Amino acid sequence: MIQVYTGNGKGKTTACLGLAIRAAGAGLKVFICQFVKGRYYSEIKALRKIKNIRIAQFGRRCFIKDKPGTKDVILANKGLKAVKEALLQNKYDLIILDEINIALKLKLIRLKELIATIREAPKNTEIVLTGRYALPAIIRMADLVSEIKEIKHYYKRGIKSRRGIEF
Amino acid sequence: MIQVYTGNGKGKTTACLGLAIRAAGAGLKVFICQFVKGRYYSEIKALRKIKNIRIAQFGRRCFIKDKPGTKDVILANKGLKAVKEALLQNKYDLIILDEINIALKLKLIRLKELIATIREAPKNTEIVLTGRYALPAIIRMADLVSEIKEIKHYYKRGIKSRRGIEF
Repeated sequence: MIQVYTGNGKGKTTACLGLAIRAAGAGLKVFICQFVKGRYYSEIKALRKIKNIRIAQFGRRCFIKDKPGTKDVILANKGLKAVKEALLQNKYDLIILDEINIALKLKLIRLKELIATIREAPKNTEIVLTGRYALPAIIRMADLVSEIKEIKHYYKRGIKSRRGIEF
Repeated sequence: MIQVYTGNGKGKTTACLGLAIRAAGAGLKVFICQFVKGRYYSEIKALRKIKNIRIAQFGRRCFIKDKPGTKDVILANKGLKAVKEALLQNKYDLIILDEINIALKLKLIRLKELIATIREAPKNTEIVLTGRYALPAIIRMADLVSEIKEIKHYYKRGIKSRRGIEF
């Protein structure tokens, strides 16, 4: 199955982290491939303690402002290559492509290439795609789509990201 | 801060599990109090491996169909008591009341009592409330609300819950 978590609200990445925990608890093997971001998140430390979960980042330390650069493209494509290899090896039951929708929106990777990669995936591999701005082609190919809508957010009151809560 | 994850889509509980992992990774102390459900979920096994996370369930093994019974009321109120004690002891940085919105909707616990409990919580405790049908009073008191909307779900095609993915 292909699951998509999109929308402008808080909870997309944490939802896929929770999925990873649940899968690992059931003895499934998980690969979390984070696109666009390369910053250290607190969850990485805790996840490394859990057997069956591999996590890798393919982005720069800072968010992409303005236009993405060559380095962003190279990193995202490295991430896609890692996903392809993981699928070829058929080593994982769950592969999470965190923020892949952003990588697609910014054209860091080609939509056609991603779709072909997912189409050729082993039938039993659960694939999860996250990030705002999921493209219509991604929504169409998905078996499950959850849109996380921001109804209220404290950042609008000037509250900054907090360690352990936002990162 | 008070965070609410509601809506009819997949991802509410997993989002709060992810939050728990992130918080624990940052050294914060977490209490996950699950209402209404008492069934064994795979995540419990994985979460027990992580220092700083305590998880407890206050529901029956099966979902509540039709009307809830006395046992459901007793269990939910035990859960609320556990939350009150945790807040009084000020031992946790993050307290997650998973499916509390369902407990409120089913009138297993009193809204006034929950609101008073949360209002009296230590300032620095992050409180997360999840479950469909968040009541307007809960939305009003929250600092952050994410609504997880079901855009597409494979259960509509007859696909049943899968171990490691849904439970």
